[in-house]
Order: sequence, then structure tokens, then C-alpha cells
Amino acid sequence: MAEVNASIITIGDELLIGQTIDTNSAFIAGELNGIGIWVKRKITVGDVKDDILSALREQARDCRVIIITGGLGPTADDITKPALCEYFNTMLIENAAALENVTSIFSKLNRLVTEINRQQALVPECCDVLQNARGTAPGMWFEKDGVMYVSLPGVPHEMKGLLTASVIPRLKERLALDAVVHRTLLTAGEGESVIAGHLADFENGLPPHIRLAYLPSYGMVRLRLTGRGAHAALLEQEVGVAFSHLQSLVEKWLVAAEDITLQEAVRRKLKEHGKTLATAESCTGGYIASLVTGEAGASGVYKGS
Amino acid sequence: MAEVNASIITIGDELLIGQTIDTNSAFIAGELNGIGIWVKRKITVGDVKDDILSALREQARDCRVIIITGGLGPTADDITKPALCEYFNTMLIENAAALENVTSIFSKLNRLVTEINRQQALVPECCDVLQNARGTAPGMWFEKDGVMYVSLPGVPHEMKGLLTASVIPRLKERLALDAVVHRTLLTAGEGESVIAGHLADFENGLPPHIRLAYLPSYGMVRLRLTGRGAHAALLEQEVGVAFSHLQSLVEKWLVAAEDITLQEAVRRKLKEHGKTLATAESCTGGYIASLVTGEAGASGVYKGS
Repeated sequence: MAEVNASIITIGDELLIGQTIDTNSAFIAGELNGIGIWVKRKITVGDVKDDILSALREQARDCRVIIITGGLGPTADDITKPALCEYFNTMLIENAAALENVTSIFSKLNRLVTEINRQQALVPECCDVLQNARGTAPGMWFEKDGVMYVSLPGVPHEMKGLLTASVIPRLKERLALDAVVHRTLLTAGEGESVIAGHLADFENGLPPHIRLAYLPSYGMVRLRLTGRGAHAALLEQEVGVAFSHLQSLVEKWLVAAEDITLQEAVRRKLKEHGKTLATAESCTGGYIASLVTGEAGASGVYKGS
Repeated sequence: MAEVNASIITIGDELLIGQTIDTNSAFIAGELNGIGIWVKRKITVGDVKDDILSALREQARDCRVIIITGGLGPTADDITKPALCEYFNTMLIENAAALENVTSIFSKLNRLVTEINRQQALVPECCDVLQNARGTAPGMWFEKDGVMYVSLPGVPHEMKGLLTASVIPRLKERLALDAVVHRTLLTAGEGESVIAGHLADFENGLPPHIRLAYLPSYGMVRLRLTGRGAHAALLEQEVGVAFSHLQSLVEKWLVAAEDITLQEAVRRKLKEHGKTLATAESCTGGYIASLVTGEAGASGVYKGS
């Protein structure tokens, strides 16, 4: 089947003044990628109705899935819902289940539900409400002219809950998606350009449905193969063969044949050889300890600081 | 004078597969905001020539400054420079100063300059080259039909060096920009919606050139006043008066009347009262120690872990 393109629209003045780093869109992109939806574009606009409307119109031109986050808060500057009403030519109505959710959250906090809180339960009439188990702003699912639009709160914890519990399963159900297979390896000790020169023939020889990506960071380069295809088992096999070939080509720089961090690779080496690690930090102020203990299973190899 | 709008275009497949969180655009937005340039939109596209060209055309419609990052690496998937050549109807030529920079960096590393490395010194003929003191990919400055375009490498450390040393001073020189004054305070213990209700009259009473923003995070809400105007001293005074008023209105939740982190506020309180802090961490694995020691002056109040 044809590739399904998506666009992510993040809304909020705080994203345009350098106040907040947008971590949401990377999470959403990773989740969509994992089910075979290609994110073609991301766009960030402020809490300005006309800018939100233009973004919606532009993205709907060549994307079949549009994920929107932010601007659903209770303050005056949050105007995503009025903008959605105008875009879908509908109006806000109170959703009973969403109001029940707001009331239940406030009663747990022993707080009264004010008029401003009640407004969290207002949604555009034409949407399907996605209940938010982690906060007061519901998710909203719209369809128009063959395009699916999903509006989610900007709070990362709430967005993640709604995306994984409701949005991803529903997208899989609604779209006959290609299978996607990723295989990643970690190299260290050589730069991207030298590795790329070394792998030029390999890369040119890949079939069009398998792609190689270079992901450099701090002295390491991760290499990732991504394959897409209708038949999952066949694809798994094809990517597996290409991955073995790739592994043999970069053998001298290979740290791990999977997608792990350098600290996890160090932990495994320590464990394999029955060694342990202790740190003494001054200027780094516990940062290395924090990195090392950030990995599951660290207490088996980490002695202290 | 009229407000100057900017757009930030970030380029790279790694930003669209969830592999990399875009921290560059928040940094750029903060720097532009600091000199009175309003970022109207941010857009991220992959390493796809047509997508880069569309983004350039679209952003040039209503923005006078366009900052582009990424896609300047030496591998085959980095195609920002060919895209810029097509957009500006020009071709790549070797820049002597940029080649000198590449050669000098590689000789310090005791490495030979390969053909692929030399390509870093190729730039579109119509641009002004901004020398990169921190890496091999030069920055590029273009002007066309009254719009300024700046292309910078995607590596954050290199982008930041070029932006602060070359781009910001040049923008200030080229544009007669409004003065901008920010004043921020930190509150804790009450939610955004309650504070917003409490401040509705204050917010409605602000003159149009002064805006209030709510910046919530982890149990705190920062409140930021931003003023713009032709006369810096007058603006400073106006924002100062509004800020004093704001401070008195949120007195009961006020933690600090400036833009500091909660850990810095804790450090100051400790110092003020001649107390010190020690931590004992297990599951948090040094994270609190790392947060506390992340602030300058921490060794005066932090005893150990």
C-alpha cells in the first residue's frame, strides 16, 4: 500500500520564545515511525488563531494524519479549541465523560471545580473524545476529507498516555500500514564521514525499501537500517541479511550490534568480566553516577560514589 | 518600527523519526527573542530537496529572517547546500577561507583531508561565508527580496558559536529593532488556572506592548512579562512598574522575583540562613546531587552524598 504521511503541529508561545524545548514531537515521531507512519513535517506555531488555521490547512494538503499538541490549557492564551471549531465549522459542547473526569480529579485533590476548570470538558461537537487518564484536558479525534486529526494536551506525561493508549491503536486499526523493521548498531572511534566513505558501495547497493541512516553523537556514530514492506516476516529476513553485512563492514569500530547507550555497553562489559565500577566526582557533581545508575541493572556493577 | 518576524527551519531525517530532540530551535528562538525578533513559526523537514524548497518558499512569504540548521554534513543524505543552490539559482564554489579552516582542523587531529572533507568548503556562490570556529561546516548568509536567510550547521555547539558570534550581531546591525524587556518571577504551590483567574484583571489592564505569559513546570508556575518598544529606558520603567504590581498580586505563592530554578532558590535560602545540605540517594542515583551541584556556588552549601 502507499506510504502514509503524517505531520505534527505543536502549539504554544512558550515554544517560540526559547522557554520550552519541544520534546513531545520527537516522542510522537518515534511512535508513529514504529507503526510505519512517516512524519513528513513538523511545525510549531504560537497561540494565534490564524497561525493555527493556516498550519492545519497547509498540513492537510499532503498528510493523511495530523497530530496536534498544546494550547488546551484553561488560561486565556490557550486557543486551540476555538481554532479547531472554526476549522471544522462546529461549536463547543460540554462532554459528560470529560466533565466527570475533571470532577473526579479535583475531588481527589480536595479542590472545588471552578468555572475555568469546567471549561476543560468543552469539546468541538464533531469530535470523538479520547479520555485522558492523567489530566483534565481530553484528547480529540477528528476526520475530514480523508484526513485524520488528533488534538492532544501539551503536558508530556498526558500526551504520552493518550498517544500510546488511544491514538496508536486506533491508527493501526484504521490504516492498513506497512510493516517497519529497524536494526541499529553502535560504533565508536571513527567519524561519520570516514564511515560513510567506507559504506558508500553498501548503501548504494541497498534495495529502495531499505534505508541507512547515520546518527552521530558525542564520539559515537549509530547506524540504523530501516525497512518497509507489506510482509513482516520477509522484511525481517531481508533487513537481517543487510544488517549482518553491515556489521561485518564496520567490525573494527563496532561497540554493540543493538541500540543501546554507551553507558549500557560499559555496564554489560563490566558484568561480562565480573568487574565493578566506582566513581569519585567533583566538578561533574554526581553526573556520571547519575548516568550509570540511569540504566536498569546498574546496582549489580556500581559500587558507589 | 514594525515587528520583525522570523522563522526557523530545522532539517534532518533524524528529527522526524524521533531519534533526536531538537534543542537548537529553542536556543535560536531565545536568542532572537532577546534582541526583539519574534519567531512566528518553526518548521522541521527531512533531508528531501523538494521539502526544503517548499519550506523556504512558504516561510519567506511572511518572515523577514529565516534561520536554517542542519543538513550540512559530509554524507550523501545531507542536501541542504544543493537545495540552497537551487533556491538562490546559483552553484557551489570552493571558499578559500573555509578550506583553510577544514585543513587546519584536520591537521590538529593529525588526519589527512579526504575529498569528502574538502566538500565542506564548498558554498553557494551568492552567499557571505560565516567562518565556523568550532567545526568544518561554514555558516552562510543570503539575502533575496528583502529576506535574510542564514544556514547553520546542526551540531548544537557549532550552531551556538556561529549564532552568537556572527548572526546576532549582524542582525542587530542590519535591522532597526525594538527594545525588548523581560521580567520573570517564580511561584510554587498553586496551579496555572487559579493564578490565571486571580490575575485576569491585571492581564486585561496591561497596555498592548506588554504581555504576560504563564510557564508552568513541575509544581511551579513562572510568570513572565515581556515589553517591546522603541525607547529602551522608558520601556524598562513601564515593565518595572507592571512587574512590581504583579509581584504584589502573587505574593502568597512567590518563591523568587527573578528567573531562577527551584534548586537555585533552595541554595540561596540555605546560604541566607547559614545552613548546608547533604543528600543520601538510592533510586535517584545521584540525580538530586547532580541537580544541586549544577548551580554555580553550590560547593558553599552542599556537603556531599
